[in-house]
Amino acid sequence: MLISTSLATKLDMNPLNELALLFSDKILQVDTILQENAYSEVSVLPLISSHIIESGGKRIRPLLTLAAAELCGGSIEDRAVTMAACVEFLHTATLLHDDVVDESSLRRGKPTAHTLWGNQMSVLTGDFLFARLFQLLVHDGSLDILNLFVQTTQKIIEGEVLQISSKATPLVSREDYFAIIQSKTAVLFETALELGGRVASGTVEQIKGLKSYAHNLGIAFQLIDDVLDYTADESGLGKPIGNDFFEGQITLPLIILFEKMPKGSKSLEKLRETIMQINRDQADLKWVQILLSQYEVFSSVKILAEEYADKARYALDVFPENQLKDILVQLTHFVIHRCK
Amino acid sequence: MLISTSLATKLDMNPLNELALLFSDKILQVDTILQENAYSEVSVLPLISSHIIESGGKRIRPLLTLAAAELCGGSIEDRAVTMAACVEFLHTATLLHDDVVDESSLRRGKPTAHTLWGNQMSVLTGDFLFARLFQLLVHDGSLDILNLFVQTTQKIIEGEVLQISSKATPLVSREDYFAIIQSKTAVLFETALELGGRVASGTVEQIKGLKSYAHNLGIAFQLIDDVLDYTADESGLGKPIGNDFFEGQITLPLIILFEKMPKGSKSLEKLRETIMQINRDQADLKWVQILLSQYEVFSSVKILAEEYADKARYALDVFPENQLKDILVQLTHFVIHRCK
Repeated sequence: MLISTSLATKLDMNPLNELALLFSDKILQVDTILQENAYSEVSVLPLISSHIIESGGKRIRPLLTLAAAELCGGSIEDRAVTMAACVEFLHTATLLHDDVVDESSLRRGKPTAHTLWGNQMSVLTGDFLFARLFQLLVHDGSLDILNLFVQTTQKIIEGEVLQISSKATPLVSREDYFAIIQSKTAVLFETALELGGRVASGTVEQIKGLKSYAHNLGIAFQLIDDVLDYTADESGLGKPIGNDFFEGQITLPLIILFEKMPKGSKSLEKLRETIMQINRDQADLKWVQILLSQYEVFSSVKILAEEYADKARYALDVFPENQLKDILVQLTHFVIHRCK
Repeated sequence: MLISTSLATKLDMNPLNELALLFSDKILQVDTILQENAYSEVSVLPLISSHIIESGGKRIRPLLTLAAAELCGGSIEDRAVTMAACVEFLHTATLLHDDVVDESSLRRGKPTAHTLWGNQMSVLTGDFLFARLFQLLVHDGSLDILNLFVQTTQKIIEGEVLQISSKATPLVSREDYFAIIQSKTAVLFETALELGGRVASGTVEQIKGLKSYAHNLGIAFQLIDDVLDYTADESGLGKPIGNDFFEGQITLPLIILFEKMPKGSKSLEKLRETIMQINRDQADLKWVQILLSQYEVFSSVKILAEEYADKARYALDVFPENQLKDILVQLTHFVIHRCK
């Protein structure tokens, strides 16, 4: 069963576009910071950096930093713009190293840096962006914020290592899975919003609310992303469908499928074998998609994602009603219903 | 012509071993900091880190940091030990990413992390060590020193990118070559000694002297290293001979050979073609070794290296005579005559 598309919002109405419109001048400043700080006399470095920054999707993380700053402070100062750029820098650097890691051939519908320039340049450009990120932070001058980035980076890396270690094993638990997606997605969302709140001098309660919103939004986002990897078509998602499956990545749909299938059944045994194979093909994917549909796995994941989205909305109670808060609320619905 | 081995010092007399003996208790503390800060609950990370830290050679960089601190301050405080560990952390992280970059199969005679755990884990463990390095520096609390590490990291990366860009092209100039070895070796030597001087409150003149010593020692070291890649045997160097040559790396021996060979000669044309080939074999190496010997290239490089070693010794004039300074002077001779 595919997730219902009845609630899919039109592109020009989605809350990400509303955020982008609301902060359009600030996002231009963010982009300028990114471009200027990716500069190097060694010209291949800014070339690769620009490629990945420009194919950088919807800038959801810097938009969240700006939104958090405005929620807490009423207006956005230069420092929040710098922090928004720093968050995107970290995201971009991890994407570059992730390209090496995943050997994925497509990211957001464009060839990845890796396939264009090779592993070596992806690693070095990622390193270069990490260094430039820390240069921006040193210039900003707060050891606390430097420390936040150090901790965030460590958590992201530990999550990626856990993810690699759990490949092609049918023994990944829900706990492992949630630890992985926490590090992979939720941690940087949390940092993005926490930074906005901190530079706008938000209260302890406000920052706690922002972090909880970010955490739960991030988990809901990733849960649906992992469903979309089995259901979205290539043109819609901009990357090949079945990416996780072919890479041997065990995400929640498979974990729930294992839970739901009768113990000792031949199908369950075949599923285990399929997962543990070195490679899986299109026929394997088709068969697993049928099982996922038969056992109504996607609706189970969606129910869980909605619980996280609920918690995210609840966390915003600490802020008064206004247009911006309303957009952030809409975003929690959007991450659930964005699927084609 | 092979470099003379007549001056080769016995292992137990070499100045690196003397430094190691002089600072043996401090180097143990450095190793403890490295081990403790490589810890992660995700156990594969400290496993890989330990592998590369333990196969970490002679600890020349942290020894230089400790030596610089003692030269400037008379005694070594905890902070100098931390800085020595930070320098080694940066070195280790770049080695891990270099393993991905070079696809070299041997480093210091042991299998590289890359061949044991694959590209993915080498990249992520390198990232993890970068993050832990910056955590140590944040804890140390000096934005100036953080900035020094950021600048050093950037220069190392830019040098590696230049080096990759100059592969398999016969057009590498002396200027390009010196820019590359400056970033590849001299920069981290400079930072190692500058850090020691700074945390021991060395004077401006002392720190200038330390940086000049480090720069010139680093260049001399790398010049001879690039000769050894054509002359040392595998058991002596701990890595395969001809590594640079097979990777298409154009180092000073080849640059000088191009300069010395008669313009328009058939041999010169054949040499160009050999360099520009996708792959070079053992027969190519043998032929190039004969040319290098015939044109007395190695002695040209050695003369140049000795000029840098002279400058390094001269830079130490700012310090009074003592045992430690004498060891650092001996080190400038050792890097020239260490072959085999």
